[in-house]
Amino acid sequence: MTQSPAPARVHIIGTGLIGTSLGLALSQAGRRVTLEDISSTNAALARDLGAGETSAEGDPVLVVVATPPDVTASCVAVALERWPGAVVTDVASVKGAVIDGLRSRGADLARFCGSHPMAGRERSGAVAGRQDLFHGRAWVLTPTAETGDAAYGLVAEVARSVGAEVITLAPDEHDAAVASVSHVPQLMASLVAARLEHLAESSVALSGQGLRDVTRIAASDPHLWTQILSGNASAVREVLASLATDLEGVIAALTTLGVDDDAPGARGTLARAIAAGNAGHARIPGKHGAAPTAYTTVRVLIPDEPGQLGRLFADVGATGTNIEEFHLDHGLGQAFGLAEIDVVPGAATALADGLEERGWRLHG
Amino acid sequence: MTQSPAPARVHIIGTGLIGTSLGLALSQAGRRVTLEDISSTNAALARDLGAGETSAEGDPVLVVVATPPDVTASCVAVALERWPGAVVTDVASVKGAVIDGLRSRGADLARFCGSHPMAGRERSGAVAGRQDLFHGRAWVLTPTAETGDAAYGLVAEVARSVGAEVITLAPDEHDAAVASVSHVPQLMASLVAARLEHLAESSVALSGQGLRDVTRIAASDPHLWTQILSGNASAVREVLASLATDLEGVIAALTTLGVDDDAPGARGTLARAIAAGNAGHARIPGKHGAAPTAYTTVRVLIPDEPGQLGRLFADVGATGTNIEEFHLDHGLGQAFGLAEIDVVPGAATALADGLEERGWRLHG
Repeated sequence: MTQSPAPARVHIIGTGLIGTSLGLALSQAGRRVTLEDISSTNAALARDLGAGETSAEGDPVLVVVATPPDVTASCVAVALERWPGAVVTDVASVKGAVIDGLRSRGADLARFCGSHPMAGRERSGAVAGRQDLFHGRAWVLTPTAETGDAAYGLVAEVARSVGAEVITLAPDEHDAAVASVSHVPQLMASLVAARLEHLAESSVALSGQGLRDVTRIAASDPHLWTQILSGNASAVREVLASLATDLEGVIAALTTLGVDDDAPGARGTLARAIAAGNAGHARIPGKHGAAPTAYTTVRVLIPDEPGQLGRLFADVGATGTNIEEFHLDHGLGQAFGLAEIDVVPGAATALADGLEERGWRLHG
Repeated sequence: MTQSPAPARVHIIGTGLIGTSLGLALSQAGRRVTLEDISSTNAALARDLGAGETSAEGDPVLVVVATPPDVTASCVAVALERWPGAVVTDVASVKGAVIDGLRSRGADLARFCGSHPMAGRERSGAVAGRQDLFHGRAWVLTPTAETGDAAYGLVAEVARSVGAEVITLAPDEHDAAVASVSHVPQLMASLVAARLEHLAESSVALSGQGLRDVTRIAASDPHLWTQILSGNASAVREVLASLATDLEGVIAALTTLGVDDDAPGARGTLARAIAAGNAGHARIPGKHGAAPTAYTTVRVLIPDEPGQLGRLFADVGATGTNIEEFHLDHGLGQAFGLAEIDVVPGAATALADGLEERGWRLHG
């Protein structure tokens, strides 16, 4: 590795949300960071925000390619050639396509370890950058057989230094996993929400919290998601094909029931579809990545006025109860809300009693 | 209408969650309520909980059939014959099938007005009953051309008297609406969650908040949902068929991209699917059934210790800010959470400044 008189430096290519946030976090942690962007204005903006310097002498020890996904592979290949002593990583949300691109370019894969910090915001660009963006988030590392120990170790160390939790997967494992837990849910939320586009106003008025939850992520950016989905086309296609097969079974069962209300087997198909959803849902990790926990929900009616939620939470705090999850729902056409407070089962009675003592109306 | 010496009485058939809750709410509002259940033990339990009496002289003015959906039509038909002066309603979540059942039985439809209170809980049965279950919820009335004004008026008055918001739709409009806003979202949440059933543990570990939101309702009861879906088979089938067509288009686009990364039109198909989801999502009513509002989100890092959320909300209350929505997220493997507080855009800066002054770390 090239020895430089300056302290070990991290060079970040692409000063969008992820690149700028990483620069801020590493600078804060005392690392020396340099920044580069195809737009020198963008790079200067990230520098002015405190994400790093825009020029330096000597070679970096680590290059982080944080460009849009469609140019990631070529940027990584160029970086590997430009700095023959440096480790290179990227942060694209699809990993197999990057490796394929590097192999076809004959890149030195020993110094490359792909990665995917599972952090983001609705906003993009350098000004949206935050030094704590990676705190408590998973950062998946996707080494291949060619990846050297030094490359893997350096990327893992940098990820941990900004507060992320390192998870290691093969690139195709990563892509298959995000197809199931991220890309397909995104697409199905969009397809469900699309049913509402031309629905009568009086029908949309019946929307409830279930629909809001299912479709929340349907507000996502079409341009970004087109890049992500097309970059992970085969893994997403495979999961969607399995879903489409189940969907066809459900449609066939409903068609049969429309003709013969007692058609044998049709109700079984519907029940199995819902039951398989129960089984899949039960596998989703709960808080802190731990095994899912069954919490008890305490429901409280809250007047819709300034300070009422503050008063509620001060009262919850006074009972000494730790809140696991909190959800606020608003009734249709009514000037009050319903707060759902999830706590461990042993804490529910004390919380409910404490809130009733303090004048709160419980609901359920 | 039969004149009875006792005050006008509401008779409830079926003392499960909805029947018992309605009995509690009407009794609380000063109405006389009688209860009936195929299980006399169930009826006695609801009576002991305060939902009404189990015997009475004279005829009721209103009969509410709150049985499981598969026996609703026959119970309504029997009630119309048994009390020739009474108005009858039901509370099943699918309306067309009830009307069809009544027509085939030659029932007196002038005294019938179907309805659907859009309220529920995860728990069922009389002991789960709550007098405030209908507060602020929509209660859809589905009169037909035969429904008399007196029948419609009485059911509407009773729904309003327990705090519900009355919405009037034709039975088939109701069924088409709930197919789009409730039944199809439920089914798709189940199908998405089912993809996780046999996924590797290391893949499930990448689950994030988006997946949790999309699949929250996948925990629902297969038995109940089989009844609901089969009772609304044709409307659900129609919406699912349109979704399946879009899904096939997406799968075809992904298949094409897997072969030719520059296939013309394939990216357009993906972008249009996500964009249509944007458009549908934008139509979902926000708080209080009003038009959707764009809120500004203030994100706050909170230590995962008892009382910290209480302190946060007390501080939010001290700034005088009204919270529109609140969401709590937990980072993977980390001992702190991220609170997302939605407020009207004009209130965001004051809230953020106020929280920072009080020592909170903002995140984005």
